[in-house]
Amino acid sequence: MTAASAPPLPLVLPPAARIGDPVAEVDTPALLLELDAFERNVARMQAAADAHGVALRPHAKAHKCPQIALAQIAQGAVGICCQKLSEALPFVQAGVQDIHISNEIVGSTKAALLAQLALHARFSVCVDHADQVTALAAATAAAGSRLDVFVEINIGQERCGVSDADAVLRLLERISARGQLHFRGLQAYHGAVQHLRGHADRRAAAQRAAARTAAVIQALAQAGVACPVVTGGGSGSVEFDLSSGVYTEVQPGSYVFMDGDYGRNEYAAALRFEHSLFLATRVMSVERADRVVVDAGLKSLAVDSGLPTVWGEPSLEYAAANDEHGLVLTHGGTRPALGQQLLLVPGHCDPTLNLHDELVCVRDGFVEDLWPISARGLSR
Amino acid sequence: MTAASAPPLPLVLPPAARIGDPVAEVDTPALLLELDAFERNVARMQAAADAHGVALRPHAKAHKCPQIALAQIAQGAVGICCQKLSEALPFVQAGVQDIHISNEIVGSTKAALLAQLALHARFSVCVDHADQVTALAAATAAAGSRLDVFVEINIGQERCGVSDADAVLRLLERISARGQLHFRGLQAYHGAVQHLRGHADRRAAAQRAAARTAAVIQALAQAGVACPVVTGGGSGSVEFDLSSGVYTEVQPGSYVFMDGDYGRNEYAAALRFEHSLFLATRVMSVERADRVVVDAGLKSLAVDSGLPTVWGEPSLEYAAANDEHGLVLTHGGTRPALGQQLLLVPGHCDPTLNLHDELVCVRDGFVEDLWPISARGLSR
Repeated sequence: MTAASAPPLPLVLPPAARIGDPVAEVDTPALLLELDAFERNVARMQAAADAHGVALRPHAKAHKCPQIALAQIAQGAVGICCQKLSEALPFVQAGVQDIHISNEIVGSTKAALLAQLALHARFSVCVDHADQVTALAAATAAAGSRLDVFVEINIGQERCGVSDADAVLRLLERISARGQLHFRGLQAYHGAVQHLRGHADRRAAAQRAAARTAAVIQALAQAGVACPVVTGGGSGSVEFDLSSGVYTEVQPGSYVFMDGDYGRNEYAAALRFEHSLFLATRVMSVERADRVVVDAGLKSLAVDSGLPTVWGEPSLEYAAANDEHGLVLTHGGTRPALGQQLLLVPGHCDPTLNLHDELVCVRDGFVEDLWPISARGLSR
Repeated sequence: MTAASAPPLPLVLPPAARIGDPVAEVDTPALLLELDAFERNVARMQAAADAHGVALRPHAKAHKCPQIALAQIAQGAVGICCQKLSEALPFVQAGVQDIHISNEIVGSTKAALLAQLALHARFSVCVDHADQVTALAAATAAAGSRLDVFVEINIGQERCGVSDADAVLRLLERISARGQLHFRGLQAYHGAVQHLRGHADRRAAAQRAAARTAAVIQALAQAGVACPVVTGGGSGSVEFDLSSGVYTEVQPGSYVFMDGDYGRNEYAAALRFEHSLFLATRVMSVERADRVVVDAGLKSLAVDSGLPTVWGEPSLEYAAANDEHGLVLTHGGTRPALGQQLLLVPGHCDPTLNLHDELVCVRDGFVEDLWPISARGLSR
C-alpha cells in the first residue's frame, strides 16, 4: 500500500554482506568461506601432489567459483576439471587456460559449444562411445579447433566408461583418424571409493580401483599404445591415488571445503583437511520447548549426504530440513535466542554451492571479500 | 588452444531452447512446463475455491516464477504467498500487488526491507513473538509504510506459531498499539498433513488441524476479537480445507505442477491435478548392460521426497542420482539409445524449481515460451 507521503525507493535487494562487516551481521541464510582454513587446504593438497610428482587438476564442480580455481592455479594446479560443459564457460571467461571436461557429452549442440570453447583455452573431454568421437570430430572440423580426448574406463563404479583395453583400442582407432582430436590418455574414477569411512577400507578399495586401471594401461602398452596422462581420483582417495604409481594427475574437489560427509571419513595424519565452508543461519522462531526453528532448509542446503551439523554447539542437533526451515533440537542444552546466528557445516558441498550465488569470504570474524559462484546452475 | 586461422567467437552460452523448437531438440537438462496441463490445474483450483467462496492465494514458493503468479491472478487468485522476504521482490517487480509472507522474519535488515516493499504493494507477514512485532513497528514507522500482520498458530506441525489463544491475545495487544500494523487474522498450516497418502487418513488429519484452528478462533471471539482472515492449507489438504468452514483463504502451491510426491497421494475424484512439470534429460552413456546413464542428477533434481520417475516408460527406473549423473535401470525392457531424450517427473517441485533459471514452456510438442524463474535462490 503506497503511502502518499513517501516516494517508494527502488526495488533492490540489499547485499547479504558488505566487505568489512562483522560475520555476526551477515544476513541469512548465507554461505561463508573461512579463508584461513580454505588457504591451508589449497596449500596442503598442492604440497602433497608436488611431493609425489603428480599433477593436481582440482575439480571445479565442487565450488563453481572462478576465484577458487584461480587460487588453486596460483598455488601450482595445472588447470581444472569441470563435470558439465556449460560449467566451464565462466572459468574460461575468468582466464583459466586448461580445462578437462571429466565426463562424456552427447549431441551436436554440446559438441559445437565445446569446439568453440576450444578456441579460447586448452580443452579435453572424455569419450566412451564411437558416436561421441564422431560428433567431436565434426564439430572441431567445423570450428577449426583442436581437442584432447581421454577414453574413460570403468574401474568399478558401473557408470560411464568402457570395460577393457580392447574397447579403448577400438575408440583410439577412431580418434587417431581425426587430425584435430588427440588421444591424451585414460580417465579412471570410482565415486563410491571416496566415501568409505574406514581408512583401511578406503585404502583397499582405492588400491583395487588403481589395479584395474594399471591392468588396462599394461594391456595398452603391450599393444604399443602409451597413455601420457592417467587422470582420476577424488578427495577421499587422493592420498592413495598419489602414491599409486598409476595416476599422473588427480582431480580432488571437495578438499577445499571439507564438507560434513567427507568429515565423517577416517583420515591418516598425513593428509587432513579443515572445514572451511559454513552456512550462516538465524533462529527465527522459539515457540516450542524442545527446539528452535532456523531460516535455512532444503533450498539453502543439500541433504542427500546427511543433515548439517551445528558448528561449535554439540548439544544442538539440526534434525530436519523443510524447504525453507530447519528444526534444531536443543536436547536440554543452552537455548539459542531469537535472532541468534548459528553456523552449519553442510553435509555435501557440491550441491550446496549449486544453490547459492555467492560465497561470503570471512577471516578473523570479518567479511573480507564476496566471490560469485558464477557456474551455479550451469548443468548442461 | 587458439587456432591462428579462426578468431574466437564471443563466449556466450547458447539457449537451452528457442521458441518454436520441437521438444526433442531442447538441450538438456532443462525443466519443461506442459502448458495444457498447467492451465487446467490453475483453472481447476480456482473453480474449487470459487465454488466454496474461499479466497485462493497460491504459494509462489513452489514455482518462484512471476509468469505463473500472474496466470493465477488472472484466473481469480487474490494475490500470492511467499515463504521468504527476498523471494517477493521479483513478484513486486512483475506487478503483483498483494503478497503475504507466510512466515516469520527476524532482524532489522529484513524488517527494513519489508517496510520498503510495503510502499510498493500490499504486504502481510506472520509473527509468533513480541520481538518480531517490535522490529516491524520500528521499520514501518521509519519507512512510513503500513503492514498487515497475521499471528501464526501451531496446529500440530510443532514448528513456528504460538500455542494458544492467550498467546495470540498477548501479541495482539502489541500489534494494536502500533498504528501502522494491522491485525488481519490467523495463519494455521500443518505441513505433514499434506503428504499423508491415504485419502481418509489425510481427511482425518486435516480435520484435526482445522478443529485446532477453530478452537483458537472461538476463544478469540469470546474475548471479543474477530479474525477477518484465516489462511493456511496446501495442495494435499486443500479439498478438506475448502469445505472446513474454518479457512477463509487457502495457500496451495504445488498443484500447478503436481510433482511425484503429491502424485503418490490418493485423491478423490473431485479435485485431481495433472503432472505438468518434467525434467528433460538425455542418455549420455550406454556402456553397462543393465542401465544407461542420463545427464541429470542432484544438481538438476531435488531428491529429498524420492527419486524421479521416467514418464511414459514403466520399464525404466531412475535408480540413483549422482551430482551430475542419473543411473537408469532398464530391467530388461527397451533400451534407450545414446542421445535419446527422456522426461522425468521430479519427486519434489519446490526445491527442483530452485535449481533452475528458466521454465521451457511447451505445448503440443513444441516450445511456446521461456519463463524466467526469477526468485530462484532468493532464500533470505
